Amino acid sequence: MENFTFHNPTRIHFGRGQIEKISSEIPVDARVLLLAGGGSIKANGVYDQVKTALGERTVHEHWGVEANPDYDTLMPAVKICRTEHIDWVLAVGGGSVLDGAKFVCAAVPYDGDPWSLVEDFGSSITSALPLGTVLTLPATGSEANSASVISRRAMSLKLPFMSPFVFPKFSVLDPEATFSLPPRQVANGIGDAFCHVIEQYLTYPTNAAVQDEFAESICRVLIEIGPKTLADPKDYDARANLVWAATCALQGIVGTGVPHDWSSHMIGHELTALHGIDHARTLAIVMPNLLDAQRVTKREKLLQYAERVWQITEGDDEARISAAIQHTREFYESLGIPTRLQDYELTADVAPVIAARLAGRGMGAIGERGDLTPERIEAILRAAA
Amino acid sequence: MENFTFHNPTRIHFGRGQIEKISSEIPVDARVLLLAGGGSIKANGVYDQVKTALGERTVHEHWGVEANPDYDTLMPAVKICRTEHIDWVLAVGGGSVLDGAKFVCAAVPYDGDPWSLVEDFGSSITSALPLGTVLTLPATGSEANSASVISRRAMSLKLPFMSPFVFPKFSVLDPEATFSLPPRQVANGIGDAFCHVIEQYLTYPTNAAVQDEFAESICRVLIEIGPKTLADPKDYDARANLVWAATCALQGIVGTGVPHDWSSHMIGHELTALHGIDHARTLAIVMPNLLDAQRVTKREKLLQYAERVWQITEGDDEARISAAIQHTREFYESLGIPTRLQDYELTADVAPVIAARLAGRGMGAIGERGDLTPERIEAILRAAA
Repeated sequence: MENFTFHNPTRIHFGRGQIEKISSEIPVDARVLLLAGGGSIKANGVYDQVKTALGERTVHEHWGVEANPDYDTLMPAVKICRTEHIDWVLAVGGGSVLDGAKFVCAAVPYDGDPWSLVEDFGSSITSALPLGTVLTLPATGSEANSASVISRRAMSLKLPFMSPFVFPKFSVLDPEATFSLPPRQVANGIGDAFCHVIEQYLTYPTNAAVQDEFAESICRVLIEIGPKTLADPKDYDARANLVWAATCALQGIVGTGVPHDWSSHMIGHELTALHGIDHARTLAIVMPNLLDAQRVTKREKLLQYAERVWQITEGDDEARISAAIQHTREFYESLGIPTRLQDYELTADVAPVIAARLAGRGMGAIGERGDLTPERIEAILRAAA
Repeated sequence: MENFTFHNPTRIHFGRGQIEKISSEIPVDARVLLLAGGGSIKANGVYDQVKTALGERTVHEHWGVEANPDYDTLMPAVKICRTEHIDWVLAVGGGSVLDGAKFVCAAVPYDGDPWSLVEDFGSSITSALPLGTVLTLPATGSEANSASVISRRAMSLKLPFMSPFVFPKFSVLDPEATFSLPPRQVANGIGDAFCHVIEQYLTYPTNAAVQDEFAESICRVLIEIGPKTLADPKDYDARANLVWAATCALQGIVGTGVPHDWSSHMIGHELTALHGIDHARTLAIVMPNLLDAQRVTKREKLLQYAERVWQITEGDDEARISAAIQHTREFYESLGIPTRLQDYELTADVAPVIAARLAGRGMGAIGERGDLTPERIEAILRAAA
């Protein structure tokens, strides 16, 4: 096991009716910015519950945070916070609203160019407004971690940042708040959470027995729960298990003390930035081919994954690895997530463009061993055509 | 899944050489009480590493915290903190030292009778000195939770308390700091951690898929790692996996959103209070018989445990449950932990005494369904003779 520091201070309120906990989490004299996406939270009653919990507090609202939250959408929220002396931010939505709120919280007290906070991956952040969240889409884990991904469409960029200052102080996870999601978003959430585990697990063994078991646990739960909660969105327990699995997938416990990959995410972000493909779908395009391309360096963990997650025990090593990768691809397809570039009307032409973009930003050697060169990234994307 | 609130703010520094992190965790102008047990930390070099990390800080020391930390041992430490204006406590030792430190931290700022903080299970605690810990014995999970168990031998009592104020601010878990432990203490730690999982898992199903999988994960790891780390105490990875498994067993993630039992612990505490038996050994005496006595109400989870933890798939339901309980008993015996009262020179005569003591303290109906009456507790202990 590798040395690690583990710290996750977010308080989670999980379950039916927990939105009311906002009233005890945010000080009664707080000046709150409520950040939200579209109107779905008005249609499903979440907004009303939030407003009731906020009671008499001074609340400003900023709506319109889109999927892959954009710098230009968020900067007006930063301005509101500054002019209205906001001292708490409450994000109500999915991972995009939460990620956007993290950027706002960090940008408000920052004197320099806020975009530089993203460009340096969060390393300049030394303070942030306190953040609470109400999660309406199980997927990203943003409700219980210190990471965020911000897009800047004007520059065709999508970049992650991390800072311990942007951990939510609290997050409300009410599975019923997710019942009204369209199936496509639920499927994307399942696929996103699954890939989060893969990125932290399918690397090379470091004899981290608990972390491996936890990762395999979440994979098995997602494989079992995914089809169930898509088929019956109001099955509370199935949805609750999806929500908690997605949170656990990226709140730290799976990935502490082990090497991480994240190259499927880095390549996938480029597909979103350039072609607007849903985040989870970019992962489905990249990840199976990436696992195939890395079958030598990921060999031991791929064999473990085949046996423990997919119960594949027949055939020689190569056959079992191939079967595990094929099962992974079929899992995404079964969720309604196509796994080929052609399914999105793209060709192998994107391959050299993305490889060059990553290299141009210093990501010319990614993956847990730093062995994914531009040439190999290009080959992975060509194989995904 | 049941509603829950999950919050664990302790920062964990895990691995070789991490004791040095104390120097950045405790303010340089802090006045520190170092709380410790016997001299083992001087013999194995941990004390020297701690002193180096503390540097020029003002440090008072209080030694002699025993297994099952005693109120009368701890009160002099409370006095030192008050007279010397201590503002940080650093506990260096196993779960007993850490539990004792939690009591000291809560007692120092408390105006009333400190014992009342234990008697009311921690509900009167409204503040506490900040606590850091260096763990030298993987077992109790005290390094990353808000619980403590305090004994008062003068009154033949051993009682738990909980308070969010006593979460350690940080804990250092260096597996090498545990290499010099006697095999008996390592075995006890494995047995204690295993029972912590059982108490949170072997209750009744609430369709909490992730929590169940995580619980089964830790059980499997302990079953695999236990004999390995006992046979080769300096196998770093085996010991590291034991340390992290024991922490994860009781830091909250396994038991959130599910019913808990804890009756093996409540009954076991009485065996320690009255007869001085090691904590883990009391659990080994009680738990297998308790599972057998509760095989009707715990039926579904016992069958799941049999299959997923022990891979028992042959035989009818009753046979599989019996086999799982027998495997559990044999696991403790294989660690060198006897599971019968007679192994400790006790007889069934203890049964009515303990049942009456628990009833006398309002614990006449314990377990996840509150169905363990004094009569049934007595029967469990008679079966353990």
